[in-house]
Amino acid sequence: MTTGHPANGLEDVVHQRVRLGIMAIAHEARQVEFGFLRTRLQLTAGNLGQHLTVLEKAELIRIDKGYEGKRPRTWVTLTAAGQAALRKEITHLKQLIQQVEDTDTTPAPDQ
Amino acid sequence: MTTGHPANGLEDVVHQRVRLGIMAIAHEARQVEFGFLRTRLQLTAGNLGQHLTVLEKAELIRIDKGYEGKRPRTWVTLTAAGQAALRKEITHLKQLIQQVEDTDTTPAPDQ
Repeated sequence: MTTGHPANGLEDVVHQRVRLGIMAIAHEARQVEFGFLRTRLQLTAGNLGQHLTVLEKAELIRIDKGYEGKRPRTWVTLTAAGQAALRKEITHLKQLIQQVEDTDTTPAPDQ
Repeated sequence: MTTGHPANGLEDVVHQRVRLGIMAIAHEARQVEFGFLRTRLQLTAGNLGQHLTVLEKAELIRIDKGYEGKRPRTWVTLTAAGQAALRKEITHLKQLIQQVEDTDTTPAPDQ
């Protein structure tokens, strides 16, 4: 259970900017190739590789290596745990956004 | 300008889980006391202090020290740049969430 602010329910493994991007793209595309992620997220291969390792160790993605013709390819797929973690992240983000936007429509107390 | 995925538009200074929480709460409360942030975000004083320093150096919050009776108090207020940065973060998060949720309603191509 999460108490206090919705930010407490965010998990650093998933919330980190690049990793959230990787998981969102992998979710959109079902399975996504390393080079596509690099281009989409404007990363160096080393930086992307580090974040993929964090997600793989947390069992949120599966990494498959293979060939497309003679070219080596690395494919990234969200695991069921990864899907659940992304859904949880989005639930907490929506709560946080809702709270911020509710305040926008409330007049300041001393104005 | 942001190209590629909405995750590219997120800025680590604001996006980091704890700092996003600090900024959201400061936005909701206009001005917020250190002890209140600690409780709300379930942080140690040291950890909260470090994140406040990052936000203050980026000129996204203003920190005012004073007294309430005899008790020292630290107050945190979002600057205009902080308000704008929080708004930008939320705009990109909403785009990212929208893309993920649009995929949820699209049937998988090979099912």
